[in-house]
Amino acid sequence: MAWYDHSMSAPVANDVLPPGLSAADFAALLRSFAAALGQDAVLPCGADGDGAAEFRDPYSFPGWDDHWPSAVVQPGSVEDVQAVVRIARQYKVPLWTTSMGKNNAYGGPAPRVRGSVVVSMRRLNRVLEVNEELAYAVVEPGVSFFDLCAELRARGSGLWASIPDLGWGSVVGNAVDHGVGYLPGGNHADSQCGMEVVLASGEVLRTGMGAMTGNHAWHAHRRGFGPSVDNLFMQSNFGIVTKMGKWLTPRPEVYVPVEVHAPREQDLEALIDTMRVLLLDGTVGNVPLIGTATGAAAMMRPRSGWHAGDGPLPPEFYERAARELGLGYWNLRLALYGAEPVVDAQLARVKAAFARSLPAAEITARKIAGDDVSEQTVVTHPERVQAGVPGLALLDSLQWWGGVGGHLDFSPVAPLSGAHARALVKLIRPEVERAGLDFWPGTILTPRSFYMVSPLLYDTTNEAQVRAAYGVYQRLVAVVGEAGYGLYRGHIEFMDDIAARYDFGDHAMLRLYGTLKDALDPDGILSPGKQGIWPGSMRPA
Amino acid sequence: MAWYDHSMSAPVANDVLPPGLSAADFAALLRSFAAALGQDAVLPCGADGDGAAEFRDPYSFPGWDDHWPSAVVQPGSVEDVQAVVRIARQYKVPLWTTSMGKNNAYGGPAPRVRGSVVVSMRRLNRVLEVNEELAYAVVEPGVSFFDLCAELRARGSGLWASIPDLGWGSVVGNAVDHGVGYLPGGNHADSQCGMEVVLASGEVLRTGMGAMTGNHAWHAHRRGFGPSVDNLFMQSNFGIVTKMGKWLTPRPEVYVPVEVHAPREQDLEALIDTMRVLLLDGTVGNVPLIGTATGAAAMMRPRSGWHAGDGPLPPEFYERAARELGLGYWNLRLALYGAEPVVDAQLARVKAAFARSLPAAEITARKIAGDDVSEQTVVTHPERVQAGVPGLALLDSLQWWGGVGGHLDFSPVAPLSGAHARALVKLIRPEVERAGLDFWPGTILTPRSFYMVSPLLYDTTNEAQVRAAYGVYQRLVAVVGEAGYGLYRGHIEFMDDIAARYDFGDHAMLRLYGTLKDALDPDGILSPGKQGIWPGSMRPA
Repeated sequence: MAWYDHSMSAPVANDVLPPGLSAADFAALLRSFAAALGQDAVLPCGADGDGAAEFRDPYSFPGWDDHWPSAVVQPGSVEDVQAVVRIARQYKVPLWTTSMGKNNAYGGPAPRVRGSVVVSMRRLNRVLEVNEELAYAVVEPGVSFFDLCAELRARGSGLWASIPDLGWGSVVGNAVDHGVGYLPGGNHADSQCGMEVVLASGEVLRTGMGAMTGNHAWHAHRRGFGPSVDNLFMQSNFGIVTKMGKWLTPRPEVYVPVEVHAPREQDLEALIDTMRVLLLDGTVGNVPLIGTATGAAAMMRPRSGWHAGDGPLPPEFYERAARELGLGYWNLRLALYGAEPVVDAQLARVKAAFARSLPAAEITARKIAGDDVSEQTVVTHPERVQAGVPGLALLDSLQWWGGVGGHLDFSPVAPLSGAHARALVKLIRPEVERAGLDFWPGTILTPRSFYMVSPLLYDTTNEAQVRAAYGVYQRLVAVVGEAGYGLYRGHIEFMDDIAARYDFGDHAMLRLYGTLKDALDPDGILSPGKQGIWPGSMRPA
Repeated sequence: MAWYDHSMSAPVANDVLPPGLSAADFAALLRSFAAALGQDAVLPCGADGDGAAEFRDPYSFPGWDDHWPSAVVQPGSVEDVQAVVRIARQYKVPLWTTSMGKNNAYGGPAPRVRGSVVVSMRRLNRVLEVNEELAYAVVEPGVSFFDLCAELRARGSGLWASIPDLGWGSVVGNAVDHGVGYLPGGNHADSQCGMEVVLASGEVLRTGMGAMTGNHAWHAHRRGFGPSVDNLFMQSNFGIVTKMGKWLTPRPEVYVPVEVHAPREQDLEALIDTMRVLLLDGTVGNVPLIGTATGAAAMMRPRSGWHAGDGPLPPEFYERAARELGLGYWNLRLALYGAEPVVDAQLARVKAAFARSLPAAEITARKIAGDDVSEQTVVTHPERVQAGVPGLALLDSLQWWGGVGGHLDFSPVAPLSGAHARALVKLIRPEVERAGLDFWPGTILTPRSFYMVSPLLYDTTNEAQVRAAYGVYQRLVAVVGEAGYGLYRGHIEFMDDIAARYDFGDHAMLRLYGTLKDALDPDGILSPGKQGIWPGSMRPA
């Protein structure tokens, strides 16, 4: 799979320094880290090696160095994290925290500010607790979805974890970046409960009930006494999360993955409006997704194997892809979980709803005993990812343009109605196709909103194509912003653009973030620029 | 019902001044408020009248004046709130915000700091929007549950609102105090979406997607770009909420309230352990409650009508009350909502689960078409309060000790297991009975935790009994704290005691709250002392 591992294909010597630091001070900084954490915790960089190369954006054009880190430290304990923060304050050097470093399409492990020292949390990789009775796990940031699911299997646990499409990312990192998975509890930020955080002061904070020493409900009850601050440490640069409770879901008596294949481009609205009713009334309790056949087509063979030429994909492509793959133009997946009679009744309701709203759609469902679910029994990506069986299958789609595949994800949010989905498609598709790229949204549904995650695929070795993707991304931030839609997450290169769109009250929210940043991190060492939040010393006027 | 309206029964002239303010400055302050908001927005106080009397704790002993306000202002618009904040900064006078003022058992509308100026939000009483499609309402803080439900009825809405036991409180006030109701979405803090807040600076902030001007998803999607700050404005003194989205639930095809009457005191553990499974697997989606027969007994007649003498209620009382009222020792209520076949299957599962775990328990259920639910068709308190039909029936229980009834609510939280419930009962009951009061918990269940809300009832005109209740409350904060349980909410008199128990990392959380308070409200004007959070100038060393 080396074709998508950009760091391996393009090692480049790293001679980047932190902003404002001399080479001598930088060397002293690294010696301080090594003295506190051990030499092996500091990856060799500069003349000593290219340990920092792996912490560049894997989907950037190889020569672009705006977001290259200067060095990498890998704490192995909470005390190590405290030491890193204290040393960084002493040298006034910007840190950039990553967990597994797999925030790909949004910058991967790469820092917003060139020369930041990456704090990789990979060594903090323990599953600290699995509570079978109360259905939660407590994990460190270096625990991937693969790790957590393997631990559940090894323990013979009766619990399933909600997972995103790719299993290599961090459970903590995904939650704190407002990530989404597909089981019940798939809003990962909302199914987080109880954190431990190292603040810029070096202090250790525990949130919610954990703010009381020895409290039994740290990971069972979301709030303590006073305002809940957990959300302050998500999509922010106010602290470094070192532990987190993740709510899990009991293995159901039966698991029923459902697919709805809708034949026509205009069926998107009915799909969404039908799902809204089923989500709001509790018939469906997981996180459904609607994709086009293009994603599945890309997992089979590159674009050139489907269509000759560079222009927008013609209607014939969509028809052929749907026919060959046995899919519709739009393909909805959802799943039901629970006692068999309840699930049977829910499934009947789902089928009846789509039979009414989309009589031409094909609905398939498969019933599997929860006890029987394994990598052997569930084999397709939709069936696995909704049953907590993690994988990397989606990476196969990166070969779409040939070369070395990469993508940016353009991810606006809207109220859950067909009309808004239609409006967003009309805004995004022409811009993407005008840039010579393909429009390929994965629309993720909550009961009242959707994320239209639109991956802009390109060949990272084709600079013109990478530039086209970056250009259209930036343009689209403005286009959807003008129309009243905001992004829920964004690539490091565009965080300021995205944040600037949140402008109510002359940018009151960004001003509040600045006030909080200055109060919580007066030296501005923690991930400056993340989500457009800058410390006073670096804040644009 | 004047017997519980303490302010009417004991008017006392108000000559309280804000801390540090001379009588002349106070008069100037009131003139400033009147000039900005109009004379009718400033309630007469001192020699001019007793407008502030209604804003004392209705359940305090009448002579106790530790929490009396100096004056009351009633803004009628967001601009009015901004003006109040600016004037308060000018005079450095502490404000105390209340919505409907019905935070009874925790202090009602009364301020933590004597002499604070109460900002009553009652005039901001508009239901700004009801979105039928996306199932939410947008309300101002002066909208009570009665108001919201009346508005839904008047519009012929197909939506139900989750409500707490008493309907007179504010929808916003309840949510921002981490209040609980009993429908799906009954965790009112979690089913809030999108706020408008006036900060201590006088600026207006909109949260989540509302931070973008004209964003369509303000009340449909919980997060924007960057950390979500909504929770900072709950159980805090960091801002004044002026608008809030509240998620509603679609009127179900059928509504099935269920009761489980368990005969023995020791049945509590099995009730809770059975419910945990049903909540975690999604069979039950509302917020169930377990009470003793004492609550229902108190709604029929005073304690003296059940038991002669002052000692703890003997086993004979519990037997007789259960028999007369047709209840068990413990009485669980829950409700199912949805399509009839789904609900039928869920009900069968609920019945089977309790038949296994508590064969001696009696289970009753009633099926009502959602369209048929009204004040005429659902008449008992449990059936009404789980169907969004608000009332005041529970107030009848306040006559328990005779005189003028009042109570403090002692409300610890624990993981949802029978063992923890048993442990808390063992800790709380003896202390309460030693104080000459009755133990009468209402245990409110979430999928992983419970609140054991223990009202300490007393006759507010009996100073010795009020003192006994205050004494045992304070003692219990320490007793349950030592055992690893924290309170989710607390009376103004004990906020410091409760907050001090959240001591991890040498009180790291309280220190963080202080840092946030100083950054967001440098003059310390907003509700000083709320939840134990003090501005720098008033912070205990």
